[in-house]
Amino acid sequence: MRDLVDIGMGRTARRAFGLDEVEIVPSRRTRSSKDVSTTWQIDAYRFDIPLVTHPTDAIVSPGTAVAVGELGGLGVLNAEGLWARHADVDTALLRLVEAAEKGDDPADLVRALQRLHAEPIQVELLTEAIRKVRDSGVTVAARVSPQRAAELTPHLLAAGVEILVVQGTIVSAEHVTRDNGDPLNLKSFIADLDVPVIAGGVHDYRTAIHLMRTGAAGVIVGHGHCAGVTTTDAALGIGTPMATAIVDAAAARRDYLDETGGRYVHVIADGDVHASGDIAKSIACGADAVMLGAPLAVAAEAPGQGLYWTSAAAHPSLPRSRVVPVVEDVEVDLKTLLFGPSGDADGLVNLFGALRRALAKTGYSDLKEFQKVGLTVRG
Amino acid sequence: MRDLVDIGMGRTARRAFGLDEVEIVPSRRTRSSKDVSTTWQIDAYRFDIPLVTHPTDAIVSPGTAVAVGELGGLGVLNAEGLWARHADVDTALLRLVEAAEKGDDPADLVRALQRLHAEPIQVELLTEAIRKVRDSGVTVAARVSPQRAAELTPHLLAAGVEILVVQGTIVSAEHVTRDNGDPLNLKSFIADLDVPVIAGGVHDYRTAIHLMRTGAAGVIVGHGHCAGVTTTDAALGIGTPMATAIVDAAAARRDYLDETGGRYVHVIADGDVHASGDIAKSIACGADAVMLGAPLAVAAEAPGQGLYWTSAAAHPSLPRSRVVPVVEDVEVDLKTLLFGPSGDADGLVNLFGALRRALAKTGYSDLKEFQKVGLTVRG
Amino acid sequence: MRDLVDIGMGRTARRAFGLDEVEIVPSRRTRSSKDVSTTWQIDAYRFDIPLVTHPTDAIVSPGTAVAVGELGGLGVLNAEGLWARHADVDTALLRLVEAAEKGDDPADLVRALQRLHAEPIQVELLTEAIRKVRDSGVTVAARVSPQRAAELTPHLLAAGVEILVVQGTIVSAEHVTRDNGDPLNLKSFIADLDVPVIAGGVHDYRTAIHLMRTGAAGVIVGHGHCAGVTTTDAALGIGTPMATAIVDAAAARRDYLDETGGRYVHVIADGDVHASGDIAKSIACGADAVMLGAPLAVAAEAPGQGLYWTSAAAHPSLPRSRVVPVVEDVEVDLKTLLFGPSGDADGLVNLFGALRRALAKTGYSDLKEFQKVGLTVRG
Amino acid sequence: MRDLVDIGMGRTARRAFGLDEVEIVPSRRTRSSKDVSTTWQIDAYRFDIPLVTHPTDAIVSPGTAVAVGELGGLGVLNAEGLWARHADVDTALLRLVEAAEKGDDPADLVRALQRLHAEPIQVELLTEAIRKVRDSGVTVAARVSPQRAAELTPHLLAAGVEILVVQGTIVSAEHVTRDNGDPLNLKSFIADLDVPVIAGGVHDYRTAIHLMRTGAAGVIVGHGHCAGVTTTDAALGIGTPMATAIVDAAAARRDYLDETGGRYVHVIADGDVHASGDIAKSIACGADAVMLGAPLAVAAEAPGQGLYWTSAAAHPSLPRSRVVPVVEDVEVDLKTLLFGPSGDADGLVNLFGALRRALAKTGYSDLKEFQKVGLTVRG
Repeated sequence: MRDLVDIGMGRTARRAFGLDEVEIVPSRRTRSSKDVSTTWQIDAYRFDIPLVTHPTDAIVSPGTAVAVGELGGLGVLNAEGLWARHADVDTALLRLVEAAEKGDDPADLVRALQRLHAEPIQVELLTEAIRKVRDSGVTVAARVSPQRAAELTPHLLAAGVEILVVQGTIVSAEHVTRDNGDPLNLKSFIADLDVPVIAGGVHDYRTAIHLMRTGAAGVIVGHGHCAGVTTTDAALGIGTPMATAIVDAAAARRDYLDETGGRYVHVIADGDVHASGDIAKSIACGADAVMLGAPLAVAAEAPGQGLYWTSAAAHPSLPRSRVVPVVEDVEVDLKTLLFGPSGDADGLVNLFGALRRALAKTGYSDLKEFQKVGLTVRG
Repeated sequence: MRDLVDIGMGRTARRAFGLDEVEIVPSRRTRSSKDVSTTWQIDAYRFDIPLVTHPTDAIVSPGTAVAVGELGGLGVLNAEGLWARHADVDTALLRLVEAAEKGDDPADLVRALQRLHAEPIQVELLTEAIRKVRDSGVTVAARVSPQRAAELTPHLLAAGVEILVVQGTIVSAEHVTRDNGDPLNLKSFIADLDVPVIAGGVHDYRTAIHLMRTGAAGVIVGHGHCAGVTTTDAALGIGTPMATAIVDAAAARRDYLDETGGRYVHVIADGDVHASGDIAKSIACGADAVMLGAPLAVAAEAPGQGLYWTSAAAHPSLPRSRVVPVVEDVEVDLKTLLFGPSGDADGLVNLFGALRRALAKTGYSDLKEFQKVGLTVRG
Repeated sequence: MRDLVDIGMGRTARRAFGLDEVEIVPSRRTRSSKDVSTTWQIDAYRFDIPLVTHPTDAIVSPGTAVAVGELGGLGVLNAEGLWARHADVDTALLRLVEAAEKGDDPADLVRALQRLHAEPIQVELLTEAIRKVRDSGVTVAARVSPQRAAELTPHLLAAGVEILVVQGTIVSAEHVTRDNGDPLNLKSFIADLDVPVIAGGVHDYRTAIHLMRTGAAGVIVGHGHCAGVTTTDAALGIGTPMATAIVDAAAARRDYLDETGGRYVHVIADGDVHASGDIAKSIACGADAVMLGAPLAVAAEAPGQGLYWTSAAAHPSLPRSRVVPVVEDVEVDLKTLLFGPSGDADGLVNLFGALRRALAKTGYSDLKEFQKVGLTVRG
Repeated sequence: MRDLVDIGMGRTARRAFGLDEVEIVPSRRTRSSKDVSTTWQIDAYRFDIPLVTHPTDAIVSPGTAVAVGELGGLGVLNAEGLWARHADVDTALLRLVEAAEKGDDPADLVRALQRLHAEPIQVELLTEAIRKVRDSGVTVAARVSPQRAAELTPHLLAAGVEILVVQGTIVSAEHVTRDNGDPLNLKSFIADLDVPVIAGGVHDYRTAIHLMRTGAAGVIVGHGHCAGVTTTDAALGIGTPMATAIVDAAAARRDYLDETGGRYVHVIADGDVHASGDIAKSIACGADAVMLGAPLAVAAEAPGQGLYWTSAAAHPSLPRSRVVPVVEDVEVDLKTLLFGPSGDADGLVNLFGALRRALAKTGYSDLKEFQKVGLTVRG
């Protein structure tokens, strides 16, 4: 196979590509952006744009989850984050922001976050946060880790969660363990639930198809990689060139669709999106939707108030995300961030207007078609 | 085929190359630059150098269009730019320059430009600008977008335009739409005109050959990509490695020449030219002429007065070009910029003297021959 | 073979890869880090972690050799370094540190180190240093150069060395020369010893398998390459892309195991480890253990007190290592550096906790298994 | 052939490699540097080291030509440089150095050099300069351009030149033109001379073998490319990845040796040498000797007194070399620069001691053998 390389005697590796290495090729047609649809539907839930938020407290509060929902996307609250641990999250985050402004040692910010996460999860706080989202009428989604899924899920459902996201750096169908060492059987866990489950991250075909076989409605590809922020690659040596990972997960989706005679599991790409063009590339590689983190942190409504980090930043013994200031010179509300108009020339604003335009300029009318667009890779 | 790569399971992408990745290989011969011709002819119009200006107000005023023409190139005025919208363009541009000198937020410059373009197009102003060029006796060319081609072209012809440039980020032969959604049929549009039409940009073989079949006299490859200035790649994910794009368009030219039994459509490369060597590389890849933007912005006569941007910077909702200061330490008149002598060692001055020398040192006597020169790509 | 490239007419080169170019692919399984073993055993000596220290005075004093041993790794003292040449090493190093703080010309630091190494080796000092390690009860290891192995080894054994490390930039089985030009026959030298010998560096399959045939218990791959510190590549043009070098040495280990019907020679990777992920990648490529230098220099106990260099820095006529300050903002004790907890997000702390987690997240239970994990290389 | 790449439809390019992309692989042997020979002989002239100086006034004065000769290399004076145009070169260069220290616009330095070269060549000055070298007893070599070879050579021979270097950016065997357009027939020109001629640069196999057939004793590969200094690639688009160019010229040498039944033409690599390792790589790719420029500019004796440029910097209409300050923190005499000892860790000092060591560590005893050493290229 062309994509195998001998890296030494008797050992092959696969060539893998990041989104920054692929580019979209126009087709022979063009069309008006007005004639383009960006809608996405998973289970019974329909969305105007293929947007799922990365479950980090830096961008998702109950309030922004509602805002994202009202703008046509899916906000996912982190059920193990600050809103589940602190009655007054704003004050907690304020201390973080102040520390950052004092230009402290970056590591101090990570340690501060670790301390904030050292507080126990309080079901009442979590329930209250979820209720806030539910009361707005938008689709309610929350994220749990595999380790705490069994414990927290009942409370989440009671509070009104409609889509459950089971997410860790890597989630496999086999022998996902909890802190006490007892396995969580994802298959029976999902079978017992009445709500659709989105699970991941996965990084390859095999993990993806096994996860699809657990009954998940959607599979997350990647772990929210963000250059300059996440450090999972540096810390664990586990990398996920997203273009290849998405293509492989889409292949698993196709094979699983075939083996089940019609069950379509959605592929949600979580990582390597720096500008609107990367959203288009993610879909072009085969994703049904994108999970966005850092690109939303510039929104005026973002709880991080100018800081971004992923939940991995709070890991007690091996944090794998920095706490970093977001692009200074962009300051827009969430609606403008998603739909424009933009006065910025860097592809950081009007994210989904840009996706619509990318489809139009390459002659495609919806996301499913666009997954077939031609691609190039550099030299 | 060697140039297909598996980027994942069941998905291939094509390897594509930028001008910076290719280099010209000398042949066994060398000759004197005096024995080299750089002339180029399209339709009835003959030019001493294969230069077409990128239709941005930063470099093309009626005055510079005349100057370029008198120096042997083709100046193209943007019929939808500032000269069509403002009676006193100098004052308008001056405000831009002053803002830049105040070191304002770069985004402010884009917004200022958006405001200047919010003014309506006035046919009288446009007509007057075109007349200025016509009266000088040089070949008159103007650029319109596909959206407004039908509306503006009659006025342009009346004013004396001899070559019409229909240009957008991507222009395809099929279903080019106008704001009102009605398609512009480029084929019948061109058929009804008495003047030659240059259309584009295209980024691939198929779009190129279909565009050639509309009757265009020339096809533009690329969209004026300029590192650090244009952001179409970042915003839309649509990239155009120019070496590959030019080679493919040249293949379309060859195939179309064959299918028509002799109709030669010119390939004009618009993008990735940073220094004079990139002009040589563009021709070496198969271009008949180059469309230059940023490299001309250092000219003392440039209306941008030290700033450069492409027309995409003025897009009302998704600007895809920054407004940036040009190289500080070059300050030359247009004639010296094109023909030297140069006191600069960076290949930024004496652009076409350098092209002439590149042909001489590799033993070629004209541009058509030079399209066959050997190339290398890096490791 | 796919890994041969024509670099010109009639000359092929092999494609080789560095650790930074490979990434680990998760398998279909995940497991708890508690269920993972990182133990390593060479000859009769068993270690909790696959850690051998690079024999540079910047990180290994008798005291840190003991500390590393007590934490489960193998500390290797440089028998030709400062502890063998100076009665008061602390004062000597202090001068170096002070010079560095004065922000002197980097070359001055190299020259200062050259002067410190100009002092003769005193057997009494060497013996005393080794005894300090022996008295602690940890495994005692010391490094000699091929040039001085014959001369110094008797004294090392007398002092209690249990594992002998014969190490130079490149050590081959054939015609290793001493200063007087007489060859050291490594094979008979090793045969006459009662203690296991680790020898290297090697950079390719042939040197590795020949070295294995001398009876060495372990072979070192690489020469402690550290970006920004070592300059062997720049000075000699001899590079060692570590991923390929480790894979090749592992192939030699496999072939030698086969030709001897069961003799297993350990492969110890010495170079290109910048963060914990690179340790995982080294094992993933086939290493049994890693030899760490720079990553340990941030430890509070490191004799270098914030400076790092390899022994090559002291070469009298062609130094091939700079003396450089280590990462400022990490300041931890050795135990935390190896096992966490970490408050740093860059993969520079909790080095072996990260290795354990890398195995767990990819579903492997021990190092030997992990040598088979899937790998990718970039585009 | 594996080294051809489709860069687009119907157009192939050759993969080419720079010295920075190749690395030397050790063999199974090592030997003592004392057992290594670096001698090189061309025609009747024997040299201790394979060093030819790049004919730029920045490093070669009559005095340094003598010094290089006495140290075992070949100094080449530029017969069209400042020593041929100015009675008091020191004062002229001093002005340049002072301008540089005033931190003037870099372009000003180029213009100053252009002015210095605007002075006519005076045969008396040239003769006197050559005589100074001749009187020292070292081998006398001077460089002329193809354009002025016929005119200047008689004077050079009269003054005592023993090796003539005919050098331009590209020199081909066919139709080398002079300013008046009359061709210089290199073949008859060389045939009429009693002294050996070294000619170039060439960049590919065909130009090389044709140049060998003119009777040249040596062929120069490359044009003295030096990152950050020369800009021929940027200005003309003509690049010379040196590893590939040297390998190809060595193939031409082999084929010409075969077709002549034993005439050996020397390949002299001129470019891309930044540190001593690049000298080793040049020989490893097949060069018989290296032509060094920038690496010698740090010598205390260098006329450039801390500035470096190539003769291309003085081109009247298209300068293709900057005038740049050399590495600050190295300040050594020429002898130490070539043979050490070095107190610098960057491979910039002890250039030929490092070459000797590179041969020793890879087990080779002379340069001819070393041309067969194994190579790797990156990923």
